Amino acid sequence: MKQYSILVLVFLQTALFAQQHPVAYFTKADVAVVKNGLTKEGLLKTSFKDVKQSVDRWIGKDVDVPMPKNPAGGYTHEKHKANYILMFNSGLMYQLTGDTKYALLVKNLLLKYAALNPTLQNHPQATSTSPGRIFWQALNDANWLVYTGLAFDCIYNYLTPIERQLIADGAFKPEVDFFTVNLKDWFNLIHNHAVWACAGVGIVGIATDNKQYLNMALHGTSLDGKSGFLANIDGLFSPDGYYTEGPYYVRYAILPFYLFANALNNQQPSLKVFQRRNNVLQKALVNGLQQTNLNGGFYSYNDALKEKTFVSNEIVEALSIAWKVYGADISLLPVAKQQNRVTLSKGGATVAAMLATAKSVAKFYTYKPISFTDGAKGNEGGVSILRAGIGAQLTSLIYKYTSHGLSHGHFDKLNINLYDGGNEILQDYGAARFIGIEQKYGGRYLPESKNYAAQTIAHNTVVVDETSHFNGKEEVSQMYHPEKLFSNSANQKIQVVSAIDEKAYSNVTLHRTLWLLQLPDAEKPLTVDFFRLLSSKQHQYDLPFQYLGTVINTSFKYQAFTNNQTTLGTKNGYQFLWKEASAKASNGLTQFTFLNNSAYYTISSYTDDSTNLYFTRLGANDPNFNLRRDPAYIIRKKGTNQTFVNVVEIHGKYDTNNEVSVSAYPKIEAITILRDDADYLVAQIKINGKLLLVAQANKNVAINAAHALKLNGSNVHWIGPYTAIYNNQNLQ
Amino acid sequence: MKQYSILVLVFLQTALFAQQHPVAYFTKADVAVVKNGLTKEGLLKTSFKDVKQSVDRWIGKDVDVPMPKNPAGGYTHEKHKANYILMFNSGLMYQLTGDTKYALLVKNLLLKYAALNPTLQNHPQATSTSPGRIFWQALNDANWLVYTGLAFDCIYNYLTPIERQLIADGAFKPEVDFFTVNLKDWFNLIHNHAVWACAGVGIVGIATDNKQYLNMALHGTSLDGKSGFLANIDGLFSPDGYYTEGPYYVRYAILPFYLFANALNNQQPSLKVFQRRNNVLQKALVNGLQQTNLNGGFYSYNDALKEKTFVSNEIVEALSIAWKVYGADISLLPVAKQQNRVTLSKGGATVAAMLATAKSVAKFYTYKPISFTDGAKGNEGGVSILRAGIGAQLTSLIYKYTSHGLSHGHFDKLNINLYDGGNEILQDYGAARFIGIEQKYGGRYLPESKNYAAQTIAHNTVVVDETSHFNGKEEVSQMYHPEKLFSNSANQKIQVVSAIDEKAYSNVTLHRTLWLLQLPDAEKPLTVDFFRLLSSKQHQYDLPFQYLGTVINTSFKYQAFTNNQTTLGTKNGYQFLWKEASAKASNGLTQFTFLNNSAYYTISSYTDDSTNLYFTRLGANDPNFNLRRDPAYIIRKKGTNQTFVNVVEIHGKYDTNNEVSVSAYPKIEAITILRDDADYLVAQIKINGKLLLVAQANKNVAINAAHALKLNGSNVHWIGPYTAIYNNQNLQ
Repeated sequence: MKQYSILVLVFLQTALFAQQHPVAYFTKADVAVVKNGLTKEGLLKTSFKDVKQSVDRWIGKDVDVPMPKNPAGGYTHEKHKANYILMFNSGLMYQLTGDTKYALLVKNLLLKYAALNPTLQNHPQATSTSPGRIFWQALNDANWLVYTGLAFDCIYNYLTPIERQLIADGAFKPEVDFFTVNLKDWFNLIHNHAVWACAGVGIVGIATDNKQYLNMALHGTSLDGKSGFLANIDGLFSPDGYYTEGPYYVRYAILPFYLFANALNNQQPSLKVFQRRNNVLQKALVNGLQQTNLNGGFYSYNDALKEKTFVSNEIVEALSIAWKVYGADISLLPVAKQQNRVTLSKGGATVAAMLATAKSVAKFYTYKPISFTDGAKGNEGGVSILRAGIGAQLTSLIYKYTSHGLSHGHFDKLNINLYDGGNEILQDYGAARFIGIEQKYGGRYLPESKNYAAQTIAHNTVVVDETSHFNGKEEVSQMYHPEKLFSNSANQKIQVVSAIDEKAYSNVTLHRTLWLLQLPDAEKPLTVDFFRLLSSKQHQYDLPFQYLGTVINTSFKYQAFTNNQTTLGTKNGYQFLWKEASAKASNGLTQFTFLNNSAYYTISSYTDDSTNLYFTRLGANDPNFNLRRDPAYIIRKKGTNQTFVNVVEIHGKYDTNNEVSVSAYPKIEAITILRDDADYLVAQIKINGKLLLVAQANKNVAINAAHALKLNGSNVHWIGPYTAIYNNQNLQ
Repeated sequence: MKQYSILVLVFLQTALFAQQHPVAYFTKADVAVVKNGLTKEGLLKTSFKDVKQSVDRWIGKDVDVPMPKNPAGGYTHEKHKANYILMFNSGLMYQLTGDTKYALLVKNLLLKYAALNPTLQNHPQATSTSPGRIFWQALNDANWLVYTGLAFDCIYNYLTPIERQLIADGAFKPEVDFFTVNLKDWFNLIHNHAVWACAGVGIVGIATDNKQYLNMALHGTSLDGKSGFLANIDGLFSPDGYYTEGPYYVRYAILPFYLFANALNNQQPSLKVFQRRNNVLQKALVNGLQQTNLNGGFYSYNDALKEKTFVSNEIVEALSIAWKVYGADISLLPVAKQQNRVTLSKGGATVAAMLATAKSVAKFYTYKPISFTDGAKGNEGGVSILRAGIGAQLTSLIYKYTSHGLSHGHFDKLNINLYDGGNEILQDYGAARFIGIEQKYGGRYLPESKNYAAQTIAHNTVVVDETSHFNGKEEVSQMYHPEKLFSNSANQKIQVVSAIDEKAYSNVTLHRTLWLLQLPDAEKPLTVDFFRLLSSKQHQYDLPFQYLGTVINTSFKYQAFTNNQTTLGTKNGYQFLWKEASAKASNGLTQFTFLNNSAYYTISSYTDDSTNLYFTRLGANDPNFNLRRDPAYIIRKKGTNQTFVNVVEIHGKYDTNNEVSVSAYPKIEAITILRDDADYLVAQIKINGKLLLVAQANKNVAINAAHALKLNGSNVHWIGPYTAIYNNQNLQ
């Protein structure tokens, strides 16, 4: 270790890549652009004032750098977090105002850390396999390194060489060594934690002119390129920019990706990091935004907190940087406007200028039907978002057939979620976590997150024999992914995606096809859902609908458990569900209508008299009140092969202020299965007297295959894997 | 009956008070003002366009006037409702455009009703004691009469005398006779239904020049003035304008009050109806607005649907009329702006013009601490709203010690509710009703409304022996009211209200004092709650807190009922509560912290080791899913005399987008009762090391009485019924 320190010292002193500073967050030329922008009123100036005000409160004060003690939400955690943001902001103020009081504030704090950090052992509250030192987990230490590295770079020219050395050796080196030696395996992961760690070490490398740090950050500790930042760019995104952990985590990871890439781009433009893999970082941002609800909330599949929206700091930073490196993109203006602030950078200045002159900015981001592949090579399933309606009338149906998504993935193969008019209709629970609240398990993921939220029953997909997909084992789930059979989102009238999973259960094949149909005489699109289960053995198949809303009506009688309530099951998430009511279905059509905000939703299902129905409520076995008391509607079938055909209808309007309720009843009148075998699944749906025929080929899904069936005595023929015929008119 | 008809005919023909028309909704002069306003862009013009568009869709079409059949939400109900709005709007369009197609539409519809109405018997879905004919309840028929009367007046000059006669005899007379003969007792009530009925009959009287109708409307069917519109103005409001049914129903009743008063004012200005009882109708509007949350939602005590806000049509109409008759009131502009439309009247035109020229309009209505008396003479208790904070930071503590409030009253003597930052923190459930949704009991009040929502346990006040106040009997409750002992809202640092109820239980006196204290070193006000129970016999006292939010922490261990849940009780509302957890408290301080949106709330309670605590959840015995699954925290004490001392603390901040949680722990460290006897109740509250002494006289509450007590070895003396001393400083 001693020898290693000397080596670093040599590197620093010879200054192998002596560099102009600042360079990490912005360059001298960028600073000039921001200063010029600040001469005008507008978002840049208000953002500047907010930052300046937050820093000015601390000028001349002795800012505490406490001995680390508390978990998230506790004093020392929140103080160290506030400190790195303060240093970063004060560094920016120094560059933008030239006032040395800002540089002095950063210097004093960094010198305190230079004294503290060499004394630190693992944090007393550390519980994870990647413990931190300043914080309970190394991830937060990596955040600290990113921001203090940027702050150091901002005041580089203010510091004397001795001060630089003191800070580099005392504040940074213990953290860098800790990451790259003690936590080497963690640092070398392909995972959002590693992205943060590489960004921290790399930015510090650039800020302190330390090429060794930079090389480890780019290529991994053994410099072989199998890990490190570039390997993470290559490994965590699919070719079309889908981030394997899902939308909530792309929001989080995009910040270190963009901050470090931006520093690299300033310092080594020849690396063309933003152009890597056909601009994959640009695709990551845009695709992340496409995976948000009308309010900007990221879709909550996999571990996710629903409160997070695209006004969060990470997306503000990424948007500003993207604007600078990829050029102006007016499709981002609605996002920038809702963010209502910009970063104090060249990108931020140009976004603000554009917003100031834009004639009108749309209220909502422009969402479109879109599909992503998953996996670095794009061959590990994917996710499709079927969409109809514009503006506030948007309907989004999400169909997820991705790979597991690393440690934050859920056991939810072939899951669906439905959003309508900005409301969650069929929800994904997200994660059970109160981020930053110490009393709630130190702000960490709560046990209920793995035990309930990640389990299959918490989703809108089939659970076989009350056992989660892959038996709830991440290491197995991580090895497999469903396969898309066919899809079409080019035609607004008939959007369809079909996928199959043969690995979630060893002896059951799951095959689900989702259709979003825009019928000519309907205002809202109709969701048709075919779910085939194939097995040679007898099983129980549960298809939950995690509806959000108020029960309005059911077509069936049920038994409500009114005086005494027990759980639906005992394990794999079932232990968290109170059984509120149950029913035996009858042959034919079963309907359940609920109200969510100002619209009615009806789930119409094809059932037989062996089908059971359940209304459940979350909250059993939750002594710490960690879960929301959300409802679900579960359709249970038994058998070897089984088929669920469900239709989700959006209908009517409810306006309480004007006391108007229209079309509160569904229009679906019957569902009949005309054919259901190895070759075809065909359903006929009667809607307000008219017939809708929905048909798919199960085996021969070739795009040019011709199919001809005799159904109800008439001949039906079509080309390709599917067709939908409404009122004798082909929808295509 | 025959003779009676002839009499009416005579009245009409002799046209005893032949009148210029239009006069009911507006006059010729008013119409000129509106027309002039329409020459400019702005809210009047957009409101006009909306109305015109809604009417133009029907021009030239044969509008259905179906035989009445369905309850609310069903076709015939919604159609007749749409028809009277259509006739009214089309009448306005005729006046404002002069285009006779609008008059023709009204005439054709009125003639259809003239054919239909004489054939009608009681509505087939009628279930109430005041059945309707066109609708299931007479109240809706009264709505119909109000709007069709206004519509008739608008096209009066377009109609031939014969047409007028046909409509008056066929469309109006059967309804008027039905109200004033068949439903005479109902028509003569002092109640919002009667207000609507009088407004309907009175407006039709004005529109058809029928003085007899008008007289009955003003003075009751026997013309003795004990009932009728004027008696309702005198009987339903307290002298300061509090409406006895509460804020949700003043919203509803204000429309017929204002519409009919406006017509009267146009037709008989000498009556000075708007000046009656020192402008009580103006006070009713302003006080109704003061009883709203930041989002405009009316406080939900008594029967109330939380979705109703001051953007509802009733308040739009009342605001426009108030503007005309009482003059411009810029304090109403924030309400008008949120309403985002105005009525097509002189008042509406002036409001729109004012909004167009106003430099800036505050985001929120200006709320202030305020108290109202209840009862026509102002001597039947009242309600106080203790308030602190401005704009989005408003905290409102509502203390209700009113009389019952007629048929929509709840059994909630000495109830409190807390709103903070626009969020409901300690809620009133409101009513269980899905207005207008046919599948939900025809849109009527659901049985759970009486059985749960109106019961005492659904509130934030003490339930003795699991029995509701007045044993849940409206006719008994209606006879009594609590008495206010003392209050002060003049001092922002110490707002206080004390009231006593001796009638809710035959052998227990309830005495509650609420304090809203603004401590000098606190951001948010502190609620201190003294609740004394006085009885010579042993009782069980339950004090529920209907908190809304997520359980964050408790100072006590509890047993959670994780696998099997039963109800807290079997009757008086208790049967709807699942017992989620229970605990035995210990001597001293008991604390419960919850999170609601971005703030923490802690209820700190003085308990002893005989105190029991419960966490409950609504939903038991609710087979039709009519109730929300809301939580409660219940403190149960037993004894003869008992005292609850609770402190509700608002603390900290939780910002999920920035992942910041500050001050998540309460600052209250101890609660000690220093004296608790017939003369005094004194508590000492330790807050972050400092002491707060809160003291009240129980007996001698004279404003000038001097009190001197020896407490903790020191002498404390003060003048008046109460004092609060913080950190050795008197708060007053």
